[in-house]
Amino acid sequence: MNCWPCPRGPSYSLYPVLAAIQGAAQNPVPLNPDFSLPALKELKQGKLWDFEAALTFITTPNAPGGRGYGTAELEGLCRLIKGVVVLDEAYVDFAREHALPLALKHPQVIVSRTFSKAYSLCFQRVGYFVGHPELIGALHKIRDSYNVNGLGQVAAEATLDDLPYYQDNFKTLIATREETGAQLERLGFRVFPSQTNFLLVRPPQFPAQDWLEKLRKRKILVRWFSAPEVHTALRITIGTAAEMERLVKVAKAILR
Amino acid sequence: MNCWPCPRGPSYSLYPVLAAIQGAAQNPVPLNPDFSLPALKELKQGKLWDFEAALTFITTPNAPGGRGYGTAELEGLCRLIKGVVVLDEAYVDFAREHALPLALKHPQVIVSRTFSKAYSLCFQRVGYFVGHPELIGALHKIRDSYNVNGLGQVAAEATLDDLPYYQDNFKTLIATREETGAQLERLGFRVFPSQTNFLLVRPPQFPAQDWLEKLRKRKILVRWFSAPEVHTALRITIGTAAEMERLVKVAKAILR
Repeated sequence: MNCWPCPRGPSYSLYPVLAAIQGAAQNPVPLNPDFSLPALKELKQGKLWDFEAALTFITTPNAPGGRGYGTAELEGLCRLIKGVVVLDEAYVDFAREHALPLALKHPQVIVSRTFSKAYSLCFQRVGYFVGHPELIGALHKIRDSYNVNGLGQVAAEATLDDLPYYQDNFKTLIATREETGAQLERLGFRVFPSQTNFLLVRPPQFPAQDWLEKLRKRKILVRWFSAPEVHTALRITIGTAAEMERLVKVAKAILR
Repeated sequence: MNCWPCPRGPSYSLYPVLAAIQGAAQNPVPLNPDFSLPALKELKQGKLWDFEAALTFITTPNAPGGRGYGTAELEGLCRLIKGVVVLDEAYVDFAREHALPLALKHPQVIVSRTFSKAYSLCFQRVGYFVGHPELIGALHKIRDSYNVNGLGQVAAEATLDDLPYYQDNFKTLIATREETGAQLERLGFRVFPSQTNFLLVRPPQFPAQDWLEKLRKRKILVRWFSAPEVHTALRITIGTAAEMERLVKVAKAILR
């Protein structure tokens, strides 16, 4: 099983856990230091990638790096992979591109999505797969019979009746993300390009873990990961414009 | 895996399906014709039971038979079974006895319960296990991370704050069940003893499947199963007293 990119990736931390529960052999593929995907040529030469793996996960846009991978780049991979590919699009509503065309074109490619992020329904635990009817049919046979709560389904359907409201939210969030990124860069933060509802940043002057504490003392909660690829960085979730202005103001005060 | 009693039992129809999904060897144990458990002595002699099975399911009270099994009888089994025993108490709120003492006493025994039946929360999909901390701890490690919807948990907890309301409901339902059973017996139905919120009955005069149609035409929906052990019977869910009076009245008209 390729979990790209987990745990050395790094990517969504549940994939290696779920693979371990199933006793699956894992083949985490490391990302480039800027969280972009290694070039296809490099993957093939370096034998980093197991193109024969039964199951491959690619989180796009990725967490905690924040990068979204281009459809053309993903298609290059999907063409070479023999097993099932799950393109985890949990954050896709904040991205420039989505990979649904790949799920519709390649019979072994599934796009997975959730209402937990962009639609604020994390309490409801509703998600879905898009893929070839044969593959979806096989999964349907073995999935839990009562795997989704009825109210959750009603809530998820209701969001689809109100898409313009959510799309306005996405635009506002993306604008706030870009503005926050620009302001943090001016303060000396390295800001990794994000197509998600968070920013991964490498803070100046103090170690990232110290920033975590300094911000926490000022009642701003961000996320720090101890994994070696990201322990110099912080993940900052995008809130309202006012909340992000406060973050920038507090960051200035810390740097002073 | 002993699924007692599935599918030859008969019992909850999902157990053989789930066992098949896992590729588990199944050992369904047939019940007596009146849906009581075969005597322990008989089970041992006849080698019906695999006391070494890794996993044993016993639904108590059982469906669709409706029988509840006594704690003493169940304890005799739990003492002999080496593997994990799941006592499925989905219908326990309509029963005379529950088996929690067995889960607290025997480290390999789990009681499973649901809020879907007696607490009317089937839309929410919330259930729970009671068992030894070591066994529950092992299951906790491998269960889905986000397996219960948040609103479902809130709703389930709210029922626990309002138990007297539900207990009144259970008493009313049990009284209606007993009254309906007595009336149907007077009309010539064989009524199997029930500790659930339904009655399994063997109707007189016409085959059970004809009764299904005749009742449906009069807008009364009951359940008929094609499995050989129960195809001569109907499962009737207990509704309000008025609904059950209507059922008895319609049954009289059909018999006339």
